[in-house]
Amino acid sequence: MNSMEKINQFRDDRDWRQFHQEKDLALSITLEAAELLELFQWKTSEEAKEQPERLKEELADVLIYSYMMADNLGFDIDEIIDEKLKKNALKYPIEQSKGQR
Amino acid sequence: MNSMEKINQFRDDRDWRQFHQEKDLALSITLEAAELLELFQWKTSEEAKEQPERLKEELADVLIYSYMMADNLGFDIDEIIDEKLKKNALKYPIEQSKGQR
Amino acid sequence: MNSMEKINQFRDDRDWRQFHQEKDLALSITLEAAELLELFQWKTSEEAKEQPERLKEELADVLIYSYMMADNLGFDIDEIIDEKLKKNALKYPIEQSKGQR
Amino acid sequence: MNSMEKINQFRDDRDWRQFHQEKDLALSITLEAAELLELFQWKTSEEAKEQPERLKEELADVLIYSYMMADNLGFDIDEIIDEKLKKNALKYPIEQSKGQR
Repeated sequence: MNSMEKINQFRDDRDWRQFHQEKDLALSITLEAAELLELFQWKTSEEAKEQPERLKEELADVLIYSYMMADNLGFDIDEIIDEKLKKNALKYPIEQSKGQR
Repeated sequence: MNSMEKINQFRDDRDWRQFHQEKDLALSITLEAAELLELFQWKTSEEAKEQPERLKEELADVLIYSYMMADNLGFDIDEIIDEKLKKNALKYPIEQSKGQR
Repeated sequence: MNSMEKINQFRDDRDWRQFHQEKDLALSITLEAAELLELFQWKTSEEAKEQPERLKEELADVLIYSYMMADNLGFDIDEIIDEKLKKNALKYPIEQSKGQR
Repeated sequence: MNSMEKINQFRDDRDWRQFHQEKDLALSITLEAAELLELFQWKTSEEAKEQPERLKEELADVLIYSYMMADNLGFDIDEIIDEKLKKNALKYPIEQSKGQR
């Protein structure tokens, strides 16, 4: 099974899809992003990286809810990433963007 | 190329990896999650879903920064999702969790 | 008029209180906090402080929605701040907390 | 003492102002907003309001960090709220905005 299939099996096994309205998924992605960000509160990047297990877990949570949202909306993960990178490439042409923040 | 390779090529073409300190990536994931959430502000899930193109873009941004974070930290996306699902499965056994929010 | 009265007059003049369900206010506080945070993206504190007008506006937005939430829930701003500081004081006694992050 | 003075005394008693760089305060406001938002996850506004003590605490935390940010930047809370409401009033004239989301 790929990651999307595993995530869907997890929620279907528990009959949880009924709770996963998209507004609550969007809210959950934000909450998980905040939990990841919390690992950096009052810290430098270097200090935060001393907790790789916590980083793994919180980042995984962001991804899991994002995958659920994609599935709910019928989006293909790789396709929407590819489309967005193409839009970004037009907005930030290599020549003008190189080394510029 | 897979999604991770495309994302890395995008930032390497622009020499942007120097800006991608993990604290700023964590902050960026949160900001993109908020932009996704904003599409649901003052709306029901049904109303928000009338803007699929915006949803695609904002969700893709969350994913792109999350993939960059994983790459920076040396994490494999599928592996951390799998590990987290296994932890969640122990925390929420099917029997006790079925249909429970 | 004090700030709370001005905020309430603003929304009552526009008949907007009907939209201000608490879940959407909580969501809005988060979105405004993210807009404030965005002024610090890829920047140091010093660099971000070069935009005082933007900081003023975004911080004011966080405060305005927070005041609306307090009003909706019947909370007195000064009272809930005072109560929370007292709880924090018990959790972080001066002796043990001094100079400790 | 007013709320701002109490907040400042709290952090000065603990010699904590040294940690309160504005980027970390902005991050903290977002984290506290997310904790407030979490009380609404998978819930309606009505369901969330059954926990008034938690709502009080999390809203107070948003306010406390927002007040610290204002103080750090030399902003007067009432003044920035007043200025922002005036800008909003120009953007949303009563006539055109009444009852419109």
